[in-house]
Amino acid sequence: MSKVMPRTLSGFMELLPGEQQIMERMKDVLRETYSSYGFTPLDTPVIESAEVLLAKGGGETEKQIYRFTKGDSDLALRFDLTVPLAKYVAAHYAELSFPFRRYQIGKVYRGERAQRGRFREFYQADIDIIGDGKLDITNEAEIPAIIYDTFTRLGVSRFQIRVNNRKLLNGFYAMNGMSEKAGEIMRTVDKLDKIGAEKVRQLLIDEVKMLPCKAENVMDFMAICGTNDEVLAALERYRGMDATFDEGLDELKTVVKYLSAFGVSEENFAVDLTIARGLDYYTGTVYETIMLDHPEIGSVCSGGRYDNLAEYYTDRQLPGVGISIGLTRFFYVLNEQGLLSDEISRAPCDALILPMTEDLGFAISAASALRRAGLRVQLYTEKKKFKAKMSYADKIGTPFTVFVGEDEIAAQSLSVKDMRTGEQRALSVSDACAWIGAQVATSRNGAIIKE
Amino acid sequence: MSKVMPRTLSGFMELLPGEQQIMERMKDVLRETYSSYGFTPLDTPVIESAEVLLAKGGGETEKQIYRFTKGDSDLALRFDLTVPLAKYVAAHYAELSFPFRRYQIGKVYRGERAQRGRFREFYQADIDIIGDGKLDITNEAEIPAIIYDTFTRLGVSRFQIRVNNRKLLNGFYAMNGMSEKAGEIMRTVDKLDKIGAEKVRQLLIDEVKMLPCKAENVMDFMAICGTNDEVLAALERYRGMDATFDEGLDELKTVVKYLSAFGVSEENFAVDLTIARGLDYYTGTVYETIMLDHPEIGSVCSGGRYDNLAEYYTDRQLPGVGISIGLTRFFYVLNEQGLLSDEISRAPCDALILPMTEDLGFAISAASALRRAGLRVQLYTEKKKFKAKMSYADKIGTPFTVFVGEDEIAAQSLSVKDMRTGEQRALSVSDACAWIGAQVATSRNGAIIKE
Repeated sequence: MSKVMPRTLSGFMELLPGEQQIMERMKDVLRETYSSYGFTPLDTPVIESAEVLLAKGGGETEKQIYRFTKGDSDLALRFDLTVPLAKYVAAHYAELSFPFRRYQIGKVYRGERAQRGRFREFYQADIDIIGDGKLDITNEAEIPAIIYDTFTRLGVSRFQIRVNNRKLLNGFYAMNGMSEKAGEIMRTVDKLDKIGAEKVRQLLIDEVKMLPCKAENVMDFMAICGTNDEVLAALERYRGMDATFDEGLDELKTVVKYLSAFGVSEENFAVDLTIARGLDYYTGTVYETIMLDHPEIGSVCSGGRYDNLAEYYTDRQLPGVGISIGLTRFFYVLNEQGLLSDEISRAPCDALILPMTEDLGFAISAASALRRAGLRVQLYTEKKKFKAKMSYADKIGTPFTVFVGEDEIAAQSLSVKDMRTGEQRALSVSDACAWIGAQVATSRNGAIIKE
Repeated sequence: MSKVMPRTLSGFMELLPGEQQIMERMKDVLRETYSSYGFTPLDTPVIESAEVLLAKGGGETEKQIYRFTKGDSDLALRFDLTVPLAKYVAAHYAELSFPFRRYQIGKVYRGERAQRGRFREFYQADIDIIGDGKLDITNEAEIPAIIYDTFTRLGVSRFQIRVNNRKLLNGFYAMNGMSEKAGEIMRTVDKLDKIGAEKVRQLLIDEVKMLPCKAENVMDFMAICGTNDEVLAALERYRGMDATFDEGLDELKTVVKYLSAFGVSEENFAVDLTIARGLDYYTGTVYETIMLDHPEIGSVCSGGRYDNLAEYYTDRQLPGVGISIGLTRFFYVLNEQGLLSDEISRAPCDALILPMTEDLGFAISAASALRRAGLRVQLYTEKKKFKAKMSYADKIGTPFTVFVGEDEIAAQSLSVKDMRTGEQRALSVSDACAWIGAQVATSRNGAIIKE
């Protein structure tokens, strides 16, 4: 028979078993953290009607979308989790309670040009809090706490949550008579990290066509830095010139005020006036999260406050605040840079049981007992030589191998070998559960990301 | 602005938050059970090259498939998890260890005619054990143990795993000179439950064109029933007439022999000679699982042994055994029939904290403490009247509400209300963790499915 080449499409992540174990552990941590803040899981279809998905229309997104017909239906694959959320909240409005807090970890699709580290199918891990008409500012203050908790639980301490407020920016541009150019200015200022202050100033004058004194104002504003208290104090000097600015400053102060109550360390948080987030729909607090030792990765968790989640589907005003982690890309970069922990077990099991006799009764009952103790246990029953069995144990990377031969059956005990140290012990079944269990718990709850 | 109707496509399940909580819990139980047997999680792309996905070609599947082009690529959405597994094992053969045990819980797509309870996007939850060249029969014996554990953990006890062996059937047809008609006979016998023995006999004579005496042989064989020992004894009478039959009988006896060692209760297991499973590629043991009080649901977990997983991609012989749960349909039927437990919490949180003062410091630190104790905690900070806050608590179904007012702040204690009993207690933060934690653990680990 002629064979078809078993290939996976480029731009689609397909992990080997060991890597997949780590990815699953990361998803677990996100689920646990989001749940602990009262977010409820949602799972919306991957396929939606193209009309629904593209209600907003236009832009880069529409070009990248996977769109096709089936029968008479014009269909498309979701390209983010926000549009499906908007649809969901509009469609199920009467059955939901607001504020509605949901998380969703799911695959989304964008037919981007294939290139290293760019994915056409990738996981987003989103949380959003949606209000009905109103949403209190404390929700915006809670978001950095959730980001903090998420990355801390992933094992990272060297990260920084950077926060700004769009009202503050819009107010600043308004008080300088630059509102019309605000978008262009923000896009230019966004290059500060890459090209430096001098070149940004020049671009503002040459390309954005600003007067040098106005460009100077922008550069002075963006240069405000220091501790959070110092930045807030510097911003106070602009108070009273624009109502929107003042509102943004009050919101920012509220967010900062609650930080320590929420347990966010000062070193993991910074007010950063250069952050704007490209998307038009953010209207208040905006967030980015940087790995301090790997700034080249860019923001690994971003989001913000918006005023109108579902305007294409309903007249109801549904303000919200949300953040998103691009999980597939994040995992890819961590893996490429060797930042995934070696402590987390990549093996399919915690213990591999090798029966040495024809009769499997005792081996099977030992496996059941170890499972009842919460362990992952594989029974290996292929008829192979001892050497081949041990080679299998090594290859799958099992932390423990359990031998069950005639002596063990006679003594109703197990010979348990710690594969890392080589230590072998003869143990009762319950002592084996305890010994293996203690070491497995350590690796299961350890940091996922190295520093 | 004109609005787009926020609709979800028909044939696509989109659950409300409370239902989704139960679905997630079911997925957790499957993940936990499969992991406990040493299966490693895989996650393959939803989109594959059409050439790869349709390597086998033909049949009903190809008509139902979602297939489309993007740029120059001919793409398709996976319609099961077996073909992607075959591709994966063939593509990554050198990097895998055999037997290779994997589980995958993922969405698959079939453009079936929309009708109640039929889904175009649905979860399959699969496990497979793949051997390299050979795979020991004990793997086939372990599968019923895994099915038993899965349904027991889901809270079901009234289920029956029905097992047959294709070699036994093929051998029986061969010894009766009916091999050519085997497929047709099996499809007819499959109607036994629906139309009864008499009509099946008539169909065998009228439509399958069998001699009455041959039809009688088939009916006699299919009528063999009783305890497993009785069935096996009856089958022994056919021994010696066909080598394939004898091989199948030995395999079946091995599977039955290990059942009690694996902890499977006699009442949850039956040898059933009428089971064949439609799919051509099964070659040994086949499995079905029936809910005894709801036989109308049909098999909720099916599978079997096959000899050649990846023949379209590789010359390597890769035998395996696997089972699949059609999770979306299973959930749908359980929900429709009111069989989902009321004990499992459907609320987004275990405790809703209602601060009664402007200052949120103590409420926030209490929330953090409850979270550290493993609880899901939502802080409610909207500026609403007390009545509106309580109505929100009722609507989301939180099992506990925690009030934090001036008195509580002064006493550094919490007023905790059990929403089901109405009981309210003034507790220290740690006592609150203990009281709420104990009751939440019960509902978290309770049965998911009612009986």
